[in-house]
Parts: sequence; structure tokens; C-alpha cells
Amino acid sequence: MSDKKVIKKIGELADQIDKSISGEKIPTMKVPLRSISNIHFDAKNNLLRLGKKRSTRSFMNIAHSRRFMQTMLIGAKCKELVERGKTASIRELYYQLKHTIAGTKENTFEDQSESDPLIVDLETMLEVLREELHLKADDKGKIIGNIVIEDTGDFIDCSKLGRSGLAIPSIVEHYKFHEVKADYALVIETGAMFDRLVEEKYHQKNNCLMIATSGQAARGIRRLVNRLNREVGMPVIMFTDGDPWGYYIYSVMKAGSMALAHESERLGTPEMKFVGMTMTDIDSYGLEKVTEGLKDVDRKRINELLAYPWFQKKQWKHQLKLMAEKGVRIEQQALASKSLEFVAEEYLPEKISKENLLP
Amino acid sequence: MSDKKVIKKIGELADQIDKSISGEKIPTMKVPLRSISNIHFDAKNNLLRLGKKRSTRSFMNIAHSRRFMQTMLIGAKCKELVERGKTASIRELYYQLKHTIAGTKENTFEDQSESDPLIVDLETMLEVLREELHLKADDKGKIIGNIVIEDTGDFIDCSKLGRSGLAIPSIVEHYKFHEVKADYALVIETGAMFDRLVEEKYHQKNNCLMIATSGQAARGIRRLVNRLNREVGMPVIMFTDGDPWGYYIYSVMKAGSMALAHESERLGTPEMKFVGMTMTDIDSYGLEKVTEGLKDVDRKRINELLAYPWFQKKQWKHQLKLMAEKGVRIEQQALASKSLEFVAEEYLPEKISKENLLP
Repeated sequence: MSDKKVIKKIGELADQIDKSISGEKIPTMKVPLRSISNIHFDAKNNLLRLGKKRSTRSFMNIAHSRRFMQTMLIGAKCKELVERGKTASIRELYYQLKHTIAGTKENTFEDQSESDPLIVDLETMLEVLREELHLKADDKGKIIGNIVIEDTGDFIDCSKLGRSGLAIPSIVEHYKFHEVKADYALVIETGAMFDRLVEEKYHQKNNCLMIATSGQAARGIRRLVNRLNREVGMPVIMFTDGDPWGYYIYSVMKAGSMALAHESERLGTPEMKFVGMTMTDIDSYGLEKVTEGLKDVDRKRINELLAYPWFQKKQWKHQLKLMAEKGVRIEQQALASKSLEFVAEEYLPEKISKENLLP
Repeated sequence: MSDKKVIKKIGELADQIDKSISGEKIPTMKVPLRSISNIHFDAKNNLLRLGKKRSTRSFMNIAHSRRFMQTMLIGAKCKELVERGKTASIRELYYQLKHTIAGTKENTFEDQSESDPLIVDLETMLEVLREELHLKADDKGKIIGNIVIEDTGDFIDCSKLGRSGLAIPSIVEHYKFHEVKADYALVIETGAMFDRLVEEKYHQKNNCLMIATSGQAARGIRRLVNRLNREVGMPVIMFTDGDPWGYYIYSVMKAGSMALAHESERLGTPEMKFVGMTMTDIDSYGLEKVTEGLKDVDRKRINELLAYPWFQKKQWKHQLKLMAEKGVRIEQQALASKSLEFVAEEYLPEKISKENLLP
């Protein structure tokens, strides 16, 4: 969405409030509900989605008026950011807006926990991404491989970054993709496994991009993968630890998250596939000795995953049940027990070429 | 240190054990003590250092023999890594060495918590860095600015990386520095502040390198800053939050840490200076409204810092006492309350040009 359109959308919200006031009507806002009752899994498109339920926030309701005022302040500041071509972290936004209201002892905001949820309200009300409001979350992750990314006038050849890779910023809306020669993107849960594969020149030998998420993926990574898939048709394969936490990281990358269901379309990548670690790998590759026992939290998480609609595919139910039965989980790095090179020379090439992947 | 020399050092340790065995003597190892009683602050050089106390580990002492065997396994594997020109994460090392000893039900290692401290034993015994043993810790951080880094044959111009920056890997021993045109390096605690300064083109306008640590600095960042300072004489200035945690991050970058006192020389940068946030900034820049109250953990940490020998400089005692008196801490991003540009256009240039810095 263009900056112009975002400014227009914020303006329309403000106009509507303004009209209510001049018409001596009570100013109200309709905010999409983000509770679980309004989130559903769109199985056809493989995405979590926000439903149509809305709540009405009224300026004249004493329980709403503070948040009403705060939402207006955030909207006005975002409009200013977009107009000025600036971005701000959600922490900076809080500090920018925090002040004592003239003639009172009342502060506009007492804590960032007051402004953060209202940013999401604004995103859902206006149907814009946080990044389009020029707000940013924390960044994490890196990318390496055969692609040229244009970033603020610089053409960055990601195949010429030694063993380091490009740091992925929190906002990637401005990235332009050139010379996309890689055949697919491999998204990797741990930084250490990314390093291993870089050292083995996996990205060069297999002509792929490699992206490290370092745990749960930051929004910048999710958006980058989404854009690579939608805009240049890049197939995406994910590689995580074989535990409920790794599987959930995959599901968020693929189908979106409950907290950000309103943004699944632009943060999720439903076409993504999963290469490992699976529970069946343990037998196939003789890894029984390097598994680890499940803890109570792991078992609890397995049951939660089994209840999510987006884990109802038979392959995933099979893996999760197998995990509970075996009572073990397995890490990516456990493949090092075979040899350091095993993951790059046998495990990944074999599974990917045979399309031994989960949906 | 060259790979050759590292191999030689491991070989010498092995030879010494071998000689004991063939001479029918009890094999022993002398391991430097890493407890607080053997760590001192070298005020002259501004570095934490490990003392000369050693403990003797004997193969024939039943309390030592398991760790003795494990240390030998780790030494042999590191020698293999160096000889083969491979690196491994400490997790991979653990998986590579974990196996059941033939003819027994005994595993070589049960858990990574067994191998990690022995890696440090080996580092201190041999006086080599972990990275020189080709082992790596987690990576974090990014760098941007006017320098060309040669990494595995690629020449990376860090001034041509848009708003993204180069991801700093866990091992930077192989980096070579070319065309170092920046005047100084600014090391920044939070990723969000790094982003702010990139957006304001601070590094371009002030011809400096900028490095984000994203909290406590990973070893790769500390080693990179150390090398930039020692090898190309780059002055280094650090910018953290105004709280005991930020001040400690600075002290670790500058003087080293207790856990890694044996590596201070190669991970610390004693010449480093500190620009902010200071407690005096609160008055100087009228930031009273955007401070946050101290919690009990903050107060406890202030007292710990006041007791450390390397915080005994009068400027630091003053800041820490002021913090306790005022009962507040202040974040870097609180400067956004003035304006988004304030940090880049006034705060940093003013303090740095007036050398209003802490030692």
C-alpha cells in the first residue's frame, strides 16, 4: 500500500470522528475483535484469519474515553510519520506521545502497554500493516544466497557477503528484488545451523537462499519470506528442531499467528513446506541416541498443537502423536552426531530431492 | 594465533599425558582456577584478568577421571576441527562426542552442561580463544558504515548495505579490514536505536561505523570491536540505556567479564568511552518526565556494580549513586520525547564533539 493511501485512510477515520462532533453526535470507532472467538482457520487458503465481529468504542463511555483519546493521538502521530517519510519503533512512538495534558495532572500514556494494543487496533481498523504506518517491531535474522536486494539505493548482492549474510531489518517494505537466481529459500530455525550450512556452502552447491530466524521469526523475516514467495514465486522450505516449539514456529511462518491474524495475508506463506526434523527421521537416520526426553511443558504444548485447526493434517497429527508416544524431541544439531557434513551432504539434499516434505 | 600453533598446543598437552602413561606415572592436568578468588582487575590496563592459581586434575582420582576423559575427547575433536578447517557450535561438539563407550552402558556425555565448562578449561589451559579451537557460540549484532571487510574472499563494502547492515557472525577471526575510512565506531545497545540512527544517516553524516549489540554483546561483536580498536586504531564509543544493565554491558565490552576473564585481552577494549545515557543527561536535556522508576532488582544491581573494582572511577560512582538517589533509570529511546531526530542531530554530536564522555 502506498504512503498516500495510508494517509488517506487515517484521514478518513479522523473525518468520520470530526463529522460526529460537528453533528453533535457521539464519536465512535468500530474496532475488529481480536479474541479467539473472532479468529478462524481458512483451510482452503491455509491461513489464520480475523472474522467480521467488531466492538464499538465510544468517546462518551467513561471506560472507553481514555483509549479513544490515545487511539487518536497514535493515528495523528502515524500520519505525521508517513507524511515525513520517517519510521519509529513502537517504544519511540510511546515516548513521542507521552506528555502531561495541559491544565491537568493526567498523562496521555503511563506505560507502553497502553499504546501497543492500540497500534494493533489501528492496524485492524484501517486494514494496514504496522510497517505501512511506519512503525517497527524488533528485528532479527539474516539472509545469504543468490539474490540482489535493492535497499535505499544500494544494490546488495547477497551471494557476495562471505560467511556473514545480510541483517534483516524490521521493515522490508522498501526492498526491491533483482537477479533472483536462487531456486528456493531454506528458512532455518537456529543461527548455529545457518552457520553450519554456510560453512558447507550449502546455498552455493544447492543454489538456494538461506534465512535464519533465530527462534520465533520476527515480523521482518516473515514479511520478507512472504514477499519472496508472492512476488517472485520463490518456493520456501523450513527446517526447525523436532519439537512442538519448532513446529509452531513453522506454522506461524506458514499460516500466521493468532495475535496477528489480521495480517496473515501479508505475513504468512501458505505454500511453504517443512523438511525436518521429523519424528520419522529418528528411525530413518538412526538418531535414537541423540534425542532428548520430553518435559511436561513439551507434552502440554504437543496437546495444544493437536487441538489447533491448522495442525489437523494427517501428516502433522502423525508426527505429534509419534512425538508423544516416543516421549522424545530432537534438535537440528543432533545431526552432527553422524558427521558435521551430514546435514548438508545427505540429510537435506536427500529429503528435498525426494520431496520427502510435510505440508 | 595460527591454526598450526593451536594444533601444536593441543599436541603438547596430549604428549605430556602420553609420557605420564608410558612412564607409569599418574596422568594429570593443571587447570587454571576460574573462581572469583583467582580473578582480579588490572586497573593499569583496565582489564579483568585471570590469576595464576591452578588446580590439578588427576586421572586416578575417581572424582576427576570422567572429566579427564571428557577433556581429552574435546581436545582431540578440536584438533580434528582445526586440521580439517571446520568450525562447530558448542552444541554440535557435544553431539559429535556423545556416544556409548564400547563394552559399557556408560555415555561419554549425558548433557551439554558437561562439555561446556571443559571447553573453557581447555581454552584457559592452552591459552587459546574458543574461536581459535574452531568452536563458536551464538551470534548476534550487525555493522554498517565506511569500512570494507574481506570475508572468505568477498570484499564487503559496509557503506553500501542500505538500511540493513552486515550480520556479525560468531567467529570474526577471518575478517580482514580494508579501506577503513570511518573516524570512530559507535556501539549501540538496542537494535531500535541502531535503526533510528541509520534512518537519520548518522553514520554517513558523522563518518562513523555503527554496531548494534541487541543487549549483552555476543563474543563475535566483542572480538570485532577489539580487533577494530587494536589493529586499525579505531576509537570506540558506546551508547546504552541509562540503567545498571546498560552500564554493565559497557563494562563487559570495555574490561571483559568475570566468566571470560582469561580472554579479556582479546575480547575487551579498554580504550572505549561511554557517551550515554547518563543520569546527568536527565537534567541537562530535561528528560525528567520520561524516566522510569527503579525496581528492587535495579537497586540490587546498582549496589553490585558499586562494589566491582572496575566501577571505582569517580565518574561512575557518581552516576550510580545519582541513579539510586533519583530512583530512576532512563532508556535511549526516551530521547524520542524531544523529537525523533534529537538523538542524531543534537544529543550525540554535541556530547561527542565536546568529549562529554565517561571513561
